[in-house]
Amino acid sequence: MINSDRRARMLLTCAMEGGDPAVTELVQNIGAETAWAKITEGVLGEPAAQRAAAVPTNAVEGLANASDMRFVVPGDDEWPSGLDDLRHAESIQRRGGEPLGLWLRGPSHLAHLMVRSVAIVGSRAATAYGNGIAADLAADLVERGVTVLSGGAFGIDVAAHRGALAAGGPTVCVLANGVDVAYPPGHAGLFETLGKDQLLVSELPPGAHPTRVRFLARNRLIAAMSRGTIVVEAALRSGARNTASWALACGRPLMAVPGSVYSRASTATHLMIRNGQAVLVTSAPDVLELISDMGQAMLPLAQGGTRATDALSETQLAVFEAIPARRRAPAGEIALAANVSVPSCLAALTALESAGLVEGDERGWLVALRGSRS
Amino acid sequence: MINSDRRARMLLTCAMEGGDPAVTELVQNIGAETAWAKITEGVLGEPAAQRAAAVPTNAVEGLANASDMRFVVPGDDEWPSGLDDLRHAESIQRRGGEPLGLWLRGPSHLAHLMVRSVAIVGSRAATAYGNGIAADLAADLVERGVTVLSGGAFGIDVAAHRGALAAGGPTVCVLANGVDVAYPPGHAGLFETLGKDQLLVSELPPGAHPTRVRFLARNRLIAAMSRGTIVVEAALRSGARNTASWALACGRPLMAVPGSVYSRASTATHLMIRNGQAVLVTSAPDVLELISDMGQAMLPLAQGGTRATDALSETQLAVFEAIPARRRAPAGEIALAANVSVPSCLAALTALESAGLVEGDERGWLVALRGSRS
Repeated sequence: MINSDRRARMLLTCAMEGGDPAVTELVQNIGAETAWAKITEGVLGEPAAQRAAAVPTNAVEGLANASDMRFVVPGDDEWPSGLDDLRHAESIQRRGGEPLGLWLRGPSHLAHLMVRSVAIVGSRAATAYGNGIAADLAADLVERGVTVLSGGAFGIDVAAHRGALAAGGPTVCVLANGVDVAYPPGHAGLFETLGKDQLLVSELPPGAHPTRVRFLARNRLIAAMSRGTIVVEAALRSGARNTASWALACGRPLMAVPGSVYSRASTATHLMIRNGQAVLVTSAPDVLELISDMGQAMLPLAQGGTRATDALSETQLAVFEAIPARRRAPAGEIALAANVSVPSCLAALTALESAGLVEGDERGWLVALRGSRS
Repeated sequence: MINSDRRARMLLTCAMEGGDPAVTELVQNIGAETAWAKITEGVLGEPAAQRAAAVPTNAVEGLANASDMRFVVPGDDEWPSGLDDLRHAESIQRRGGEPLGLWLRGPSHLAHLMVRSVAIVGSRAATAYGNGIAADLAADLVERGVTVLSGGAFGIDVAAHRGALAAGGPTVCVLANGVDVAYPPGHAGLFETLGKDQLLVSELPPGAHPTRVRFLARNRLIAAMSRGTIVVEAALRSGARNTASWALACGRPLMAVPGSVYSRASTATHLMIRNGQAVLVTSAPDVLELISDMGQAMLPLAQGGTRATDALSETQLAVFEAIPARRRAPAGEIALAANVSVPSCLAALTALESAGLVEGDERGWLVALRGSRS
């Protein structure tokens, strides 16, 4: 039996469009359960009430128990803290707000992966150059313990997932449709792989199909969940520019890859760099430089406004940075990545554990989350 | 008979290295004539005195009367006002200061050309992509009434001159050797063309050969004379980065062209853009946007610190901007370029002439210089 807040959020994702500011605000003000009741009574108009009435509530509750899908809500251990920033970000193209819940499919732990994550987005009509960079950047970032995040479209999205998958992952695909729907159908095999080994994410309920509005709403999730967004190639009119706006609205570093001045596919990235909205990046180390600062900034604040990592020694910091984002790692592996001896590494890990920054058990070490709020 | 200050400066360019801060400072403090006398007496050391004693003074004076060369000094009508900024710019790699004089060869009027001018610099080992952009940018800038400025080297330099020449010029070549020396020898034909139809510039006397130090000194002239510098392609170790430093030291806009992230030739341009030292440019309009502001800033200041153009109407400003930099233009042509009627254009030109901003005669209209200081 699921609790009533979770149930109300689940029903709301079925009846209402994701990122509808009116719904978001209502839930923020009076809670999901009351909001659901009020919507069925017509507080957001008759069409909304009718859509709410049409939701097969019992069937929806059953979905959450389906073996290959799960529904997470704010406060859950798996809820990515980056989504908090959507509460205060201005709406863009009449979409906005924290999602009411997320439907997930796949074995990965969403919040763990987002601790070190970068979104790679760009044009569907990418060039061979753009696809090559998206795949190379994704692979290089994965090698450095960073999770890749993208959509499921042709072009840059799929190139990024392929690069990340070939390097062993992790990669996360955020969809503008249900996590059980293959769109575009040509990527059915990719979604199968991602759902089996990685993670598919959507604020839309199972079975939902994509629309233009849903893509716009989806883009805010990609930007907010990740620690920064890289635009690889984008023409002047491009969904990637919408994702870029969301990254800026959420205070995330926006990065863009340069290309030939003769290539239309690089027009928007050049413009964003020229305008000072995006930082030019050419490689994974360029990206890490920007993301590491961000990662630091998102670590738990200790009493008095100082960061928990401020007091760390150089070795402790190196060890902390060397812990892979995607899984528990043994101390020996971390020592190798941090370029310190195993005893120094163990000492550093123990100190980090006392500071609440890492968690260790017999399976290995993991970066600690901000703490469960559920 | 040339006056004694001019004669002393001419002799100094023969005896001393260009951009030697010790010489520059001495001339600034006690004047060229006294500086020359003191140097022959050993104030800058015995080697300098010996070099000064070895200058064939009579022969040098004769050089200035040679049919295809001339020597200009600060205060001359043809002296480019941008060089003033070198007086206060910090020295870079032990070079610096306003040049003592410039040797010129070619029919163009240096100061007129520099009013709207852009330096295009970059790697000797440029790629086909870089050479293509240098030529395209140069041609497009020339079409818009901007003078191109570069060195005489392989790669970006020659590509820029070729692009500018094919579009009809003007283009100016600043050398690290005498204006009568063909270096590299493979560009002898180019220098011939430039000396006949355009302009060759050097602070070194006729016959002088290039050295590493002379290239470093030359770079500051390119950066200071022009209104802005574009780096098209540059590896991490590149003379173009020295020119770029001079552009920043002189307060000129520094621009850089992006390219493939896989190309080593674009490493330095990407770095300069990423660091915020250079603005990314992809086309002549991008360049003009930055240079126009600069052009405005360099216009004569009227009494009270307001600019002479502050009081102009929109039409007058459009007409002023439409006057080509390289030659006198008839009012009809200016009207076309400014997109105003010929009567409006004539009215505007008359007003601009009263304000001292343009000069007109039966041959056409020209942007007025700051006023002769000689």
